[in-house]
Amino acid sequence: MAGNANLDFIFHPKSVAIAGVSTNRPYEDIAETYLRALIECGFSGPIYPINPKGGEIRGLKIYPNVKDIPDSLDYVICCIPAPSVPQLIKDCTTKGVKAVQFFTSGFSETGTEEGKRLEAEICDLARQSGTRLIGPNCMGVYSPKVGLSFAPDYPRESGAVGFICQSGSNAIYFTRYAAQRGVRFSKVVSFGNAADVNENELLEYLTADPETEIIAAYIEGLKDGRHFSKVLKKASAAKPVIVLKGGSTEAGARAVASHIGALAGSSNIWDGLLRQTGVIPVANLEELADILVTFLYLPVPKGRRLGAIDVGGGAAVVATDVYASAGLNLPPLPQELRKRLRGFLNTDAGTGLSNPVDLAAQFYTPAVYSVAKAMADYDGVDMLIFHLPLGINPPFPSFPKEFAIAILNNAVRAYSDNGKPMAVVIDQFTTSESWETAIACQQKCQQAAIPVYFSAHSAARALDRFLRYHERKRG
Amino acid sequence: MAGNANLDFIFHPKSVAIAGVSTNRPYEDIAETYLRALIECGFSGPIYPINPKGGEIRGLKIYPNVKDIPDSLDYVICCIPAPSVPQLIKDCTTKGVKAVQFFTSGFSETGTEEGKRLEAEICDLARQSGTRLIGPNCMGVYSPKVGLSFAPDYPRESGAVGFICQSGSNAIYFTRYAAQRGVRFSKVVSFGNAADVNENELLEYLTADPETEIIAAYIEGLKDGRHFSKVLKKASAAKPVIVLKGGSTEAGARAVASHIGALAGSSNIWDGLLRQTGVIPVANLEELADILVTFLYLPVPKGRRLGAIDVGGGAAVVATDVYASAGLNLPPLPQELRKRLRGFLNTDAGTGLSNPVDLAAQFYTPAVYSVAKAMADYDGVDMLIFHLPLGINPPFPSFPKEFAIAILNNAVRAYSDNGKPMAVVIDQFTTSESWETAIACQQKCQQAAIPVYFSAHSAARALDRFLRYHERKRG
Repeated sequence: MAGNANLDFIFHPKSVAIAGVSTNRPYEDIAETYLRALIECGFSGPIYPINPKGGEIRGLKIYPNVKDIPDSLDYVICCIPAPSVPQLIKDCTTKGVKAVQFFTSGFSETGTEEGKRLEAEICDLARQSGTRLIGPNCMGVYSPKVGLSFAPDYPRESGAVGFICQSGSNAIYFTRYAAQRGVRFSKVVSFGNAADVNENELLEYLTADPETEIIAAYIEGLKDGRHFSKVLKKASAAKPVIVLKGGSTEAGARAVASHIGALAGSSNIWDGLLRQTGVIPVANLEELADILVTFLYLPVPKGRRLGAIDVGGGAAVVATDVYASAGLNLPPLPQELRKRLRGFLNTDAGTGLSNPVDLAAQFYTPAVYSVAKAMADYDGVDMLIFHLPLGINPPFPSFPKEFAIAILNNAVRAYSDNGKPMAVVIDQFTTSESWETAIACQQKCQQAAIPVYFSAHSAARALDRFLRYHERKRG
Repeated sequence: MAGNANLDFIFHPKSVAIAGVSTNRPYEDIAETYLRALIECGFSGPIYPINPKGGEIRGLKIYPNVKDIPDSLDYVICCIPAPSVPQLIKDCTTKGVKAVQFFTSGFSETGTEEGKRLEAEICDLARQSGTRLIGPNCMGVYSPKVGLSFAPDYPRESGAVGFICQSGSNAIYFTRYAAQRGVRFSKVVSFGNAADVNENELLEYLTADPETEIIAAYIEGLKDGRHFSKVLKKASAAKPVIVLKGGSTEAGARAVASHIGALAGSSNIWDGLLRQTGVIPVANLEELADILVTFLYLPVPKGRRLGAIDVGGGAAVVATDVYASAGLNLPPLPQELRKRLRGFLNTDAGTGLSNPVDLAAQFYTPAVYSVAKAMADYDGVDMLIFHLPLGINPPFPSFPKEFAIAILNNAVRAYSDNGKPMAVVIDQFTTSESWETAIACQQKCQQAAIPVYFSAHSAARALDRFLRYHERKRG
């Protein structure tokens, strides 16, 4: 292992080969998916499919061996069976390949002597040659800037989040899910068994990487816990670091051992480490996305005083309990402001004006703007939360999309005119149409740089952690 | 207030009038929605729209006044403005109407003297006449057996759950959401301000109701806390009772005061009450649905030992941590069983056979059945949990529906052949298609009476509460 953090070449290859393509499978196999991912994510350099039988796939010539490629080759995606891997690495070294990522499994994660031996062998080969290995047993790299990718539907745009992930399936899902939530990535690395390039080196790289402003990590086991702790502290001092630790329970740790053949480490050690370093822990990938959306979109509020705007009394009550339980304060509103709000909403006396403000029957009118603007202008709250439940209308199984967007446009306009931090909660999903509506609304908010959450609980938890992070930083 | 629990007539009217229909609104108003709800939910008796101007709506003659209806009239849905309500109640009394539900708001919930006076007036009228009032400021009754309903898309089938709900918008959403989750209702009552019929009477009724096996309640404020406590204890001794308390925080209680003009009661009193009575508390409506699905579909497991079957190593690790954190035990599997599983899955050595069992690459083969059957047959676990993450495939934004259903069919077959309690978790939603797939899969499981949850966390929390409920009952 080289142990230096300059892994730039891994994320910026000028040419890529895919070893193990096949032209006679009745279905799209993983090698073809990688090929499609490169094409659809706009990989800018030449792509070389490899198979000893030659031929053609998706209009590209198949080369029998990496050594047969006429030009220079930077990077290889390996999808061939484990026993053939050592020869491939030798060929790659001959060819001057800088890095190889291995979808291939069947190494140390199997727990077998043969698997461990094979992994040791490829590590030796890498060490001798200087060719860096990612994996095995992983999805590899997504580097949108150059169009290197492991799924065809990932965004072409780059962003501020660097994500390292020990699990291939979690990397596939999370990159896609977070992208849909409005997160864009500088780099994603699914690094599997971490035989060569490991979490320490990747963390060091992302800490120094100017394109990465926020670091997210899914970690199962550690190659070198003591070193990791140092690296994590440094990373966390430089940038927000959010960690999902897989195997934090005894049963989970057994699952880790069985998944990647590594030790998960005791949960006490992890807890201590996270407390010391200021790293933000999360319990699942959806929470991770919630936090990232918050860091990416929410301006830092001055404090914990929340002004809540709701549609529907019952939904407002439940959401308020959730916010308050998470340590967010919802101060009562002064008489003067309530009077103004009552003017906009044309309500009887005090109904729904206590913070939360219930838009009630006025939710489809421009009063939404007036209320949001008045709440944003009020000095007694540090941020606004706008809650749109999609399931409260008796005539519609779900709130009509155009309707929902019109409401949010009013809120967005108030945000644009004032700038006080605002978050939007969209919930109550009963149909797939309601999800379509929610995603359309979210995209609207995203354009205005407003974070969106899909439950009051998700919002409250993410906001609390975001505020705690900044409270700690302020000291 | 009559104070007796025989409210049967409220749920079985033979004829219904809707006061306040209009034929000249450009959009469907609430009265027309009620009308459509009655028609589409198959109300079996005559429906009488009421408006002083007369005319016709949806093929039905509009009567100027309830007194003009030629036949007897059992029930009225009131959508006219608050000031006209006293006269309507007088007319209803003359007509011999047994119950009136009031969508109409503008009473005590406004906090105004006029609102309070008006509510006191209608209570007096009701007391004098014996006509029972539901609300005001509510959605009223959904009684699928007779087709009385407040939304057109609610199921026509009855079921085992009785639900009382102080919030109209929560009643609308939750009835729809729970229906989609496979819950069917005996009766739902949105009772708003509870001016006449209140939570105590409704709880007593549902406790005695042979059609109601499980009671769910959303409660904000109480009319008579001491009596409620007694009624709740009785209910809970007879049937599982699940309560979502709105206004459990100080800010939430203020929102309640502003929503229904009632006092929420201190959270300490509530906590004590729930502990004493064995009532199951939940924090939001989605949790409520999770618990109901569990009580409706899951046979009671003998203990907390869980056998987990997963697809994808990373998702399995995260889910395992979630299950274990909720107090579910995932015992390691004996060598003998692991050997059998290895045979079915054709894996290298020990990969993913530790409980959770990772189906890995075999998830699309009949091995799913063999694994699920072997796990169900194993005496060392009390129940199975089958986890299908929809987002782990690189080539597809979401798992193809037919594929997902084929996998679950194998699990369902193992359940049918063995009968050991089984729960299914479907998660990782990135597109509206993934929700369609999830809902189709859920329906498949529902037909086989297997509960489905949409996150590992939801499943773990519901299972823990379900087990605790039965542990407490066993003593």
